[in-house]
Amino acid sequence: MSVTLVLGGARSGKSALAERLTRQAGPSPVYLATAEAWDDEMRARIAQHRETRAGQGWHTIEAPLALARTLAAAPPGAPVLVDCLTLWLTNLMLGEHDIETHARDLIAALDRPGDTVLVANELGLGIVPENALARRFRDAAGRLNQQVAARADHVVLVAAGLPLVLKGAPPL
Amino acid sequence: MSVTLVLGGARSGKSALAERLTRQAGPSPVYLATAEAWDDEMRARIAQHRETRAGQGWHTIEAPLALARTLAAAPPGAPVLVDCLTLWLTNLMLGEHDIETHARDLIAALDRPGDTVLVANELGLGIVPENALARRFRDAAGRLNQQVAARADHVVLVAAGLPLVLKGAPPL
Amino acid sequence: MSVTLVLGGARSGKSALAERLTRQAGPSPVYLATAEAWDDEMRARIAQHRETRAGQGWHTIEAPLALARTLAAAPPGAPVLVDCLTLWLTNLMLGEHDIETHARDLIAALDRPGDTVLVANELGLGIVPENALARRFRDAAGRLNQQVAARADHVVLVAAGLPLVLKGAPPL
Repeated sequence: MSVTLVLGGARSGKSALAERLTRQAGPSPVYLATAEAWDDEMRARIAQHRETRAGQGWHTIEAPLALARTLAAAPPGAPVLVDCLTLWLTNLMLGEHDIETHARDLIAALDRPGDTVLVANELGLGIVPENALARRFRDAAGRLNQQVAARADHVVLVAAGLPLVLKGAPPL
Repeated sequence: MSVTLVLGGARSGKSALAERLTRQAGPSPVYLATAEAWDDEMRARIAQHRETRAGQGWHTIEAPLALARTLAAAPPGAPVLVDCLTLWLTNLMLGEHDIETHARDLIAALDRPGDTVLVANELGLGIVPENALARRFRDAAGRLNQQVAARADHVVLVAAGLPLVLKGAPPL
Repeated sequence: MSVTLVLGGARSGKSALAERLTRQAGPSPVYLATAEAWDDEMRARIAQHRETRAGQGWHTIEAPLALARTLAAAPPGAPVLVDCLTLWLTNLMLGEHDIETHARDLIAALDRPGDTVLVANELGLGIVPENALARRFRDAAGRLNQQVAARADHVVLVAAGLPLVLKGAPPL
């Protein structure tokens, strides 16, 4: 049961690639959404995305925080797409949760009876942010990406919609 | 007739690589400049660059906005270098032009009787900008890069002057 | 005697990879640290890192500015790790030293009787910084990375702890 990490920048096409990889992994894919709605506009947008995916055969589960537990409860055999780790990390930091513990639990939860594809933002390749919180977030995201990449079977970096293989070419 | 997209960060060496690829593509290369002079200093610098290139056999055409039309009017057979898409996008956004239409026209104009090399900035790999306009620009640049990359025969990402092939290795 | 440049973003795992490459290059490795302590907290952290490395057989030399001279004085045959070029550039800019001269001297000093591994930040892949000094720094870092990459035998870009080979695969 393989684990794939899809890294990329903003509007890099990483989610589209990750969706494609998940659908190729088997029927009845699960979309594990970590985005949290902060206002009515976002609630409406999230609901619309959910409906679009439902029409394509996806089952959506929202897990802004309890990612490990939700992964463990996913149907055996079903491919799961986690979109995305960076929003999950944002939620953890805003709620002042312990990141190390949550990261460890996530890594353990990847040992599940089904393929898992995870999306994450690569955001460490710009200038050092002036904002201290942004620097802390950038460091935490870099560490989380390294931990998941070390566990993953396949890692790709997406730019302009195209994948660069960092580890174990996935079945693209 | 091939289309090559050269992506890269600031001072990555992307323009130098793109110039080399364009010159290799044939004689009488055309330099399609999208930079717009905002003051005398920039006007002087642009004029100087233009003269340097003229000495190397380039014909320079300025097209801060009318990129598709200028490409369509380029001499048949001549290799054209577009430097760069990201400045063109800046000009479109500042002038409140319709980006979708311009992007579609650009893609269509790449079907020309000659090789085309396009330079663009990859700028989505840093932290989320605090400035809302910067976020909108970053999203638009990412989408444009994806559209051109999908149409291109060759795509490379340049870092420290060195190319990483994302699609169909160009004749480096 | 090979020269290796390890590029990467914040928390990308670039230093860990560079340490591994340096240790593989031979016994008695030298750690050439360019970080400068600005306060007691940083002084304590630097001292602690130094002690940890000493326990692993590293000899640490601090060279916040005199990088070329320190490299030239390194024990013949010993592999040297320079961590990192970007902090060195920061020190040069803050002290208003001539960057071109220092860069030229550094390149010359890489012709030494031993392998050299250099770490540098890739920081040009985000949005254009609003701060003018940050833009100047980003440009200078990009130019320095290009110069060192042109001289290097091996260049890798690290993301999420994983290397992408840009030039001459190193013995990973």
